Amino acid sequence: MTSDTIRPFYALELLTKARALEAQGREICHLEIGEPGGKPAPRVLEAVKSCIEQPMGYTTAKGMLALRERLARYYKERHGVSVDPEHIMVTMGSSSGFILSFLAGFAPGARIAVTRPGYPAYLNILASLNFDVTEIAVNASNGWKLTAADIEAAYKQEPFAGLLLASPANPTGAVLERDELGAIIAVCDRLGIRFLSDEIYHGLNYAGTDTSALEISDRHIVINSFSKYYCMTGWRIGWLVMPDDLIRRAEIMAQSLFISASSVSQTAALAALDERAFYNEQREAYARSRLTLFDGLNQLGFGESKASDGAFYAYVDASPFTNDSMEFCMTMLEEAGVAATPGADFDRADGHKYVRFSYAGTPETVASALERMEQFLGRG
Amino acid sequence: MTSDTIRPFYALELLTKARALEAQGREICHLEIGEPGGKPAPRVLEAVKSCIEQPMGYTTAKGMLALRERLARYYKERHGVSVDPEHIMVTMGSSSGFILSFLAGFAPGARIAVTRPGYPAYLNILASLNFDVTEIAVNASNGWKLTAADIEAAYKQEPFAGLLLASPANPTGAVLERDELGAIIAVCDRLGIRFLSDEIYHGLNYAGTDTSALEISDRHIVINSFSKYYCMTGWRIGWLVMPDDLIRRAEIMAQSLFISASSVSQTAALAALDERAFYNEQREAYARSRLTLFDGLNQLGFGESKASDGAFYAYVDASPFTNDSMEFCMTMLEEAGVAATPGADFDRADGHKYVRFSYAGTPETVASALERMEQFLGRG
Repeated sequence: MTSDTIRPFYALELLTKARALEAQGREICHLEIGEPGGKPAPRVLEAVKSCIEQPMGYTTAKGMLALRERLARYYKERHGVSVDPEHIMVTMGSSSGFILSFLAGFAPGARIAVTRPGYPAYLNILASLNFDVTEIAVNASNGWKLTAADIEAAYKQEPFAGLLLASPANPTGAVLERDELGAIIAVCDRLGIRFLSDEIYHGLNYAGTDTSALEISDRHIVINSFSKYYCMTGWRIGWLVMPDDLIRRAEIMAQSLFISASSVSQTAALAALDERAFYNEQREAYARSRLTLFDGLNQLGFGESKASDGAFYAYVDASPFTNDSMEFCMTMLEEAGVAATPGADFDRADGHKYVRFSYAGTPETVASALERMEQFLGRG
Repeated sequence: MTSDTIRPFYALELLTKARALEAQGREICHLEIGEPGGKPAPRVLEAVKSCIEQPMGYTTAKGMLALRERLARYYKERHGVSVDPEHIMVTMGSSSGFILSFLAGFAPGARIAVTRPGYPAYLNILASLNFDVTEIAVNASNGWKLTAADIEAAYKQEPFAGLLLASPANPTGAVLERDELGAIIAVCDRLGIRFLSDEIYHGLNYAGTDTSALEISDRHIVINSFSKYYCMTGWRIGWLVMPDDLIRRAEIMAQSLFISASSVSQTAALAALDERAFYNEQREAYARSRLTLFDGLNQLGFGESKASDGAFYAYVDASPFTNDSMEFCMTMLEEAGVAATPGADFDRADGHKYVRFSYAGTPETVASALERMEQFLGRG
């Protein structure tokens, strides 16, 4: 077994501890997990209330056709690309999308590259499924962006079959411009690397527009979710866009591995796609929280950092206060009631110096957390 | 890759074809898939309508504590055993429960035994995750029951690390008595085989009471779901009970592989556990359909079969009509509008002779299907 490489997801460990403190009556500011503070649009809730009056059975493994057709229209409208609904698979959040992408897209034990820092589940899913991993370091001096040159250098050291990359990124919020993403896909094509574009933070971009890998190529895998922009984390609903050579294999695997995604959540997702005006208002609230949080953290004395362009995270250098961000986060949770995620979740080498704060909660939560931290750090 | 051993789930292929016919205006009797015809109890729907007025975020990876505590009470009340809620994990249907059980419970590539015929996803999930499989044949003459002697004989030919078994079983409806299950677990313990007890058809037993493996031992894995008895297939919600030596590893894996099950569906499941009177009425309808279906199939000339004790399936010998049950099912769907599942889904060796009919739909569906089949078979 590979249990030595599978690690707890500290954000969830913190959440568990936070819930225990709440059960004792403590009020906790939740900045530890990527959870939108809002709820789905009213029309989404109406669609759910209506649909559950009928039996909600399995759908086909790819998901409701109406939802896949609506997603195809989304790509046409938002990204100007034609996507065949038969290449779209509805998944149980991005989670089952990652599992299907790895199992359908790669030979057993293949090597997949990811960035460091990056979403911790990447490493754990790959380890659980017995794939090998190459971590390619990105750093603050380059705005935490992966480059085509980084990929080529890592590949020369040890070739890999796939590259999984998120833009906007977790935990850094880094957003790749269209030409940067294009260069990455070009080097993947040249080296025969399958590119997996994690686009789950699309829609949460405060500086420009999101580029989908589908605008550049139809040979790769796109992973997306309704969790973040559409405020549906707990609904566990997302989707994949699969290239021609993988879609049938992914469908057959999904039939047995997952049967189908929640029909209730699929119905909610279909309604959500028509409610962008509602969710854009939510994004405006994040945009305000983003400036409040980055300003506040800079003033509190965390390592100077410019507000990142996307997602809803601030990944900041906590070395002015600690060399063990895990202990720092646990103490801050216990003493100040502020939950944040230690960098070790995202970076097993240098993460001990970093902390990720999420501004996906309400603006009040962010403001209250900053006040509590001011007291906590002053006392320390 | 092992794509040669991963096969389409024909029941879902049939469903896809049936939906296409329906889109053309045809009315189809759905006897091809294990889908309850009923919907959840009214109080379940009320709980959902109420909860979605709040943001539904992630829960901890194991699931809502209230649901796990309620499940522990279920085991106390129904089975007379004490289960620690910390050993219970809420899953996305039994699907993610199987994945977690295999990945947390066994070394990569370990050999797992299953029955033939059996639930087709077992083989496909194991192949997708690169485990080896031993199939142990069970047969109609023994009421399709696996015995301790069968296990010992198969193990002598080639040892295996795990045994996955459902009672009531899919597709045969076979139910093991308490002493039979006890003998199976005893032989597993003696040979060092981890037993995985698939109990998703518990509650659907027409001849006696269900025995949980937990009544006999706390060293094995129990997989269950709200899909069948609680009429929640499309809600994708189930649970695992994990032994002491696996629970932490399974939890860590679940944090990354799945994050958590749908919070909406967890809320629905919690309410469902209090509504057994409602669901027992539904079972009474299945009980009537069961007798109608088995009588009807016997009269139509399928191989003589006694009504099986559990689940909601009739697995019958179609060799009086065909030696290719896949073609038989496709033709019956096209010509008679009756969807049933070819035995090849459940048994790659002898399944071509068998067909599985589900009586989980309404009694009217079963009656209408029998009428259509009488015409179809008369015409053939």
